[in-house]
This record gives sequence, structure tokens and C-alpha cells, in this order.
Amino acid sequence: MGRVTTRVRVRRISGSVARDRMDTLVVEEPLEMRLGGQVLTVTMRTPGHDFEMVTGFLIGEGVIADASDIHSLRYCAGATEDGVNTYNVIDVVLAPGVPEPNVAAARNFTTTSSCGVCGKTSLEAVRTKSRFVVADDGVCFSTAVLSALPDRLREAQKVFARTGGLHAAALVTPGGELLCVREDIGRHNAVDKVIGYAAGRYGLPLRGMGLLVSSRASFELTQKALMAGIPVLAAVSAPSSLAVELADQSGMTLIGFLRGPSMNVYAGGHRVVED
Amino acid sequence: MGRVTTRVRVRRISGSVARDRMDTLVVEEPLEMRLGGQVLTVTMRTPGHDFEMVTGFLIGEGVIADASDIHSLRYCAGATEDGVNTYNVIDVVLAPGVPEPNVAAARNFTTTSSCGVCGKTSLEAVRTKSRFVVADDGVCFSTAVLSALPDRLREAQKVFARTGGLHAAALVTPGGELLCVREDIGRHNAVDKVIGYAAGRYGLPLRGMGLLVSSRASFELTQKALMAGIPVLAAVSAPSSLAVELADQSGMTLIGFLRGPSMNVYAGGHRVVED
Repeated sequence: MGRVTTRVRVRRISGSVARDRMDTLVVEEPLEMRLGGQVLTVTMRTPGHDFEMVTGFLIGEGVIADASDIHSLRYCAGATEDGVNTYNVIDVVLAPGVPEPNVAAARNFTTTSSCGVCGKTSLEAVRTKSRFVVADDGVCFSTAVLSALPDRLREAQKVFARTGGLHAAALVTPGGELLCVREDIGRHNAVDKVIGYAAGRYGLPLRGMGLLVSSRASFELTQKALMAGIPVLAAVSAPSSLAVELADQSGMTLIGFLRGPSMNVYAGGHRVVED
Repeated sequence: MGRVTTRVRVRRISGSVARDRMDTLVVEEPLEMRLGGQVLTVTMRTPGHDFEMVTGFLIGEGVIADASDIHSLRYCAGATEDGVNTYNVIDVVLAPGVPEPNVAAARNFTTTSSCGVCGKTSLEAVRTKSRFVVADDGVCFSTAVLSALPDRLREAQKVFARTGGLHAAALVTPGGELLCVREDIGRHNAVDKVIGYAAGRYGLPLRGMGLLVSSRASFELTQKALMAGIPVLAAVSAPSSLAVELADQSGMTLIGFLRGPSMNVYAGGHRVVED
């Protein structure tokens, strides 16, 4: 579809020098996901790898356990007034036997919670249940391999170089191979695209692999990795308190501030082999 | 509440040297917003300025037109099993005469859209209607003032310096004054906190002011500025295509890559005075 970047006219000011020129921007468009004809959510994303993103999103939300739980994905034949398909609406049909989620009870916009939720810890209220246990899997990453990952990710980020506007996520092996790199204006989307791809290519859980993100490590990114059974999350920037807590409680390894030879190991240090 | 940062034990690896030490992390916790007893949304945020954040969020979503549309905000008396109030649930009561929104029809989790939405442009599907027109307001910012803003914001970011994990937003005047600075793990939240504060302090629309963000300029941040009647949005990093489109169509000024003396003006250049 060629809509990942676009060109706009911009006035570039640098000190006392100003000139008009063309600039490359990352494209941001809404994607509406539907399940069984009902709107599930609308997210702002960079077009491309949409089916993978939807698959990854549904895994992260616990709606499906693997790519095979989806019967079909298709762009809804919607069109603008000019008759152009927007490619911004995707219909998902689940495989036979896969229960439809209670849309009204979903996390981001629940209408069913009563005051009972106040009695739970807030962490419980946002945590989806993972089907996978990542503890004791024997996988480990050497610091030498980890150190080389950010540069490799940056080299693989084709669009970022042109726009400076994209987050990236990658599935990595203990040998340092980047199995899949995805970029998106939203860091959650980049992770969803990676997990959606990997679910189709390798099947879940993604044991023995790591997830590398160019951004900070939030609770939600940590949870997405956990829901896909990925034992190691490495982030170029800072983790949040809740990300560390979740990683710790679920047996995941969480690395932050991964910048060349230096890194912080916040949880699951047994999977990090110091060279 | 003192929960903006927390201390955790971390293994810091730098080349062949590794040692255990304490590290400061930014706190991330869920906040559940309720309206008339119904859960409106749950968002991950950094605790602090919660009432302002809720106020700003409701303005951005078009639920209220100003802070006076809220009758009361209070922490729900929920508690953990230990009897500790989580301070993570807020009840909002709207002022008499302010219509309650149709929660089920809200943007992030609508259950009412039929296939008719396919016939609209996707932009329309996510755009909330602003009550304010920002065009032709006569306000302008000099490049000298703009150039100094990122350094001032960084100086004002108390928590970022300790954690590296926070976005910041500030309300700024054409004279270069930072009227309000807020930090949060989510850039949307930082903007909501600023707008919520400013709505209570100055009233909407926030004419003659600018919004400065330490992050990229997405569609949603641009829309939040527009919903508060702020005519100028300046971002330290890249804008998205849809942010530029919205700014252009609504008469806003959008500045990206604001880094010292250099900046890109993507829309509304008439408000930028080149020194």
C-alpha cells in the first residue's frame, strides 16, 4: 500500500536561516478491529503488517492462544466518498470453537466492573492471564550478544532513518539473530506486529527467544511478551516499576537501558551470562 | 503520596564490570476513571496530579467543556486486602445539566458502530469535535523563544533526571514562560495533566498559549491541544502525518524537531516569527 511514509512541505528554521523544503513523515492512521462484526477497538498505527498486528493484539489481550485460533482476517470493503478502500478496517473471524470475548468486559473500556474492583489490587485489575509459564526454560543471552542488539536494530530500522518517528521491536535469538523487525508509530503496535508474525511463523509460546524494543519497557509491553511466552525483554530505555514487578513475579528477564556494552538487569538475571 | 518514583535493586553491567546497586524507577500504576459509577476507562499512569489528569482526559474526549462541568472528583474508598487505599480509582460526578456521555459509544471501545463507519473517512471516525476555533487569534511565538523551550523543559523535569523514564508536557506563553510542567510515563497523560491544571487555573479555551511536549507529536496529542483551544503545539521529536493534517485543517501551528535553534514548522507558520 506504500503508505508507511508520506512527504509534506515544511519550513526548516535553523538559527537565522530558514527555507522551505520537503520532509518525510511517518504515516499514522486509525485501524478499526472488528470481531464477529462488532467493533473491538480502534488504534492509531502506521499502516503495514496490519494482519500481523491484529493477530498480535488478540494474543496480548488473551482473546486467542495462537494464530490458528483465527479463521480469517480481511479488510472490510469500506471506502471513502471517493470510492477508495481505506484499508483501515479489519474483520476478524475466529476459528470454530474459539470463544468470542465479552467485548463489554474488556480492559480498556469495561462497563461491567462494580465497586468490587476497588477491593482488588490495581495490578490484578489490568493483568490478563498468560497461558504460558516462562520460568525454568534454560534459555540465556550473553552480554556480548545483548550489547550488539541495539545497533543491529537501528540498522534494520529502515523507516526511522527517514522520519525519526518510529518505534521498533524485534524478535531475537540467543545467537543474536533478529528474526523479525517491525516499526510503528506506537510501540505497542510494533510489538503486536512482531508477535503476530512470530505466532504465525513459529507458533506460541515463543520459548528460547527475546523481545527487543527501541523504547521504554512499560507494564503493557512486558505483559505482551509474557502473553506470547517470550522469556526475555530487553529495552533500550527505562523500565517502569510495574514492568519490573510483573517480570519478577512471572519469572521473566527484564533488561533496561541496553546501550552498547552497558545495561541494567532488573529481573531474571539467571538468563544473562556475563562474558 | 510519594509514589512517583521507587527504588529497586538492579545489576548494572558495563562491559566486563558488573555490580549490584539500587536504581530509581518511575512508578507506573493503573488509574480507573469512573463516571456516574460506571467505569469509563483504565489507563496506566504515573501517580500524582490525578484529578488534573482526569479533568484533562475528559476535556480531550469532549465529555466536558471546562473544569466547571465537573461537580466533584474523589478517590474511591477502595482498598487492598491489607486495608490500604490504592488511590487508583477516581469517581467523577458531572455538574448538573452536563450530559453523561454514551460510554458504550466512546472511541476506544465502541460497540455501536455498524458497517456504516466504513463509508466515512477513517479520520472522521477518530476525531472528536472541538468546541473551540483556534484560527485567527493573533498569537505568535518568536523563534528565539521557541529555541529556548526544550532546555527549560528539561530543567523543569525533576523526575526524568532520576529515572530517564518520563515524558513531559508544558503550557508555555509567547514570552517563553512555562506556566505548568507535568511528567508522566505516558505522553498522553502528561498532556492531560497540563490541560486539566490549566482548565482549572485559566479556563478554556487556552488562547494565546502553546503546548510543549518532550515526545513526538501524534494525532492524539494534537487533538488534545485542539480540544483545549491551544493554538500552538511544539514537539521535541517527529510529528506524524495525521498530526500535521489535523493541525493544518484546524488552523493550528505545529512545530516538530524543536532542538535548540533548529525546528521544523509543519503547519500554521504565520504564528512563528523568525528572528
